[in-house]
Amino acid sequence: MKLKEIGEFGFIERFKPAFDHLIAKGTTGIGDDCSIMPTGEGRNLLVTTDLLIEGVHFLREAITPYQLGIKSLAVSLSDIAAMGGKPVGSFLSVAIPSDVDVEYLDSFMEGYHQLSNLHKTPLLGGDTTKSLQHLAINVCAIGECPKGRAKLRSSAKPGDLICVTGSLGSSAAGLQALLQGIKKDDDVRSLIEGHHQPDVRVNEGLLLAGTAGVNAMMDISDGIASDLLHILKASGCGATVDIDKLPISETMSKVAISCGWNKYQLAATGGEDYELLLTISPEYYNEVSTAFSAAFNIPLTAIGKIVAGAPTISWRFNGRPTNESLHGFNHFT
Amino acid sequence: MKLKEIGEFGFIERFKPAFDHLIAKGTTGIGDDCSIMPTGEGRNLLVTTDLLIEGVHFLREAITPYQLGIKSLAVSLSDIAAMGGKPVGSFLSVAIPSDVDVEYLDSFMEGYHQLSNLHKTPLLGGDTTKSLQHLAINVCAIGECPKGRAKLRSSAKPGDLICVTGSLGSSAAGLQALLQGIKKDDDVRSLIEGHHQPDVRVNEGLLLAGTAGVNAMMDISDGIASDLLHILKASGCGATVDIDKLPISETMSKVAISCGWNKYQLAATGGEDYELLLTISPEYYNEVSTAFSAAFNIPLTAIGKIVAGAPTISWRFNGRPTNESLHGFNHFT
Repeated sequence: MKLKEIGEFGFIERFKPAFDHLIAKGTTGIGDDCSIMPTGEGRNLLVTTDLLIEGVHFLREAITPYQLGIKSLAVSLSDIAAMGGKPVGSFLSVAIPSDVDVEYLDSFMEGYHQLSNLHKTPLLGGDTTKSLQHLAINVCAIGECPKGRAKLRSSAKPGDLICVTGSLGSSAAGLQALLQGIKKDDDVRSLIEGHHQPDVRVNEGLLLAGTAGVNAMMDISDGIASDLLHILKASGCGATVDIDKLPISETMSKVAISCGWNKYQLAATGGEDYELLLTISPEYYNEVSTAFSAAFNIPLTAIGKIVAGAPTISWRFNGRPTNESLHGFNHFT
Repeated sequence: MKLKEIGEFGFIERFKPAFDHLIAKGTTGIGDDCSIMPTGEGRNLLVTTDLLIEGVHFLREAITPYQLGIKSLAVSLSDIAAMGGKPVGSFLSVAIPSDVDVEYLDSFMEGYHQLSNLHKTPLLGGDTTKSLQHLAINVCAIGECPKGRAKLRSSAKPGDLICVTGSLGSSAAGLQALLQGIKKDDDVRSLIEGHHQPDVRVNEGLLLAGTAGVNAMMDISDGIASDLLHILKASGCGATVDIDKLPISETMSKVAISCGWNKYQLAATGGEDYELLLTISPEYYNEVSTAFSAAFNIPLTAIGKIVAGAPTISWRFNGRPTNESLHGFNHFT
């Protein structure tokens, strides 16, 4: 049987139950942005790991080594942010083909260091080895939070407002511009740069996790059309999402219009935004929103509502149901 | 500049200092088998990560998926064992080319589960993605030990006896038999199996770390000729090693003779034994040795001595110095 017939999550379901009996009480394993483990003194440890493969997750000729260094760490730090954790260390494994020289690696490590420094996260270990052909990069990030404070995918409740930080679809628009060879004016260049050097919402995640009323949270790596389903399945509820409320940057909107792309489609299904997707109890929404605005220069936007029912998304446009078929990034198609 | 001109450790030295200021007091970063982090209640967390690449670390046509599952986890559990830690969880990232089917992956996960079960170590998370051509597998293992109990490479003292668990060179002989296409009788088959399904010395490491007199410890992944140098450099001392005292299994010895291989060379420089290399204060040696023999069916063998001086190994044979040039496995040659 081919893996693409069952997909990443179908594969995980095949082996996950066999490990369940080994998992200690108080530990959360596969199924959220991070694993959660108890440590002493009322703290929890958060662990996540991400593998980036040349030709699948990045094109070596399109991304600078400095940007690749940033992106490699960003992907994992974003998972710590998604739980509302504080990153405390990272572990970097790199498989290096012979046509990658030391200068390339120096620049890669400068990018990695830049983001490490920004979030005060030391590189604590790793592995360096040869690769026959493609660069392969694995980053394991470790974070921590007060016991029981980690924000789960499974905590959404009917009535919650669904919110996202920042804007959506810009990374996907940057990737599309790259793949279609769109002429690089300043706008296009900034979208491509955003795709290669994503911001990570560590500080935003910490504030949100510490604010009453925030229920479920995760980061957006595959696009909300796909990622929101994880929250719905884990929480056992459904959602309505207003497509016209998806926050889209002016730059992305301009480029989408000039290229003839559907900006809503990009915002709903484009991956690698690394924004936070969260649900907030409606009675706390104003308070959370005010605290967020006071601390950060990016928007927090309500895009829909959690409803009772099956784990599906009802898309709406201008207040009316729409049948548009939206789906996220599947790694194996 | 080519990476092979400076090697893995030369590369690490280029970026490591830039991260030092981010490392909190009580945390040990790059440079030992694991990173050591403080957790509450007098415990330390141990973290290690290892990347295995098809065509570099294994040949898909030579190793069964079940064995590959075992080996992938074994490499990282061995690093936990090397610190004297108890493994508490693992994280598995796999990049999967399209010619690897679900049945292959099921069998891989069965092997991974078998070793997880043996050492009561749950799989707590990971990442699954596509690869263009080669399988890439990263395992991050997490362990723990009482605060300050982790055995470091830097704790060897002049006068210490250098000891190894089990026997050396069998894995290298198995690999050599594979690469040279040696006819597979029972002996050859058992060496190849040992290469593909290494035992991991978790229980041995736990006992040794808890026994007075054990100073430095690490696992043998690149061969003692190379690995012992890490202890010497970290501890600031030298060593004499008696080549004729290296523990060699009867099976390996028989196959080496029939193939015309130098068994001592294999034992001193062959990688992937995943035995433990440790130094013991001489006044405690009998006690440690007795405790070890009472608990395990494998030997603990004294192969040399730590001496004051530069971090080099003086090799001896039948009590006399020998000039034999011995070196371990370099990933980039």
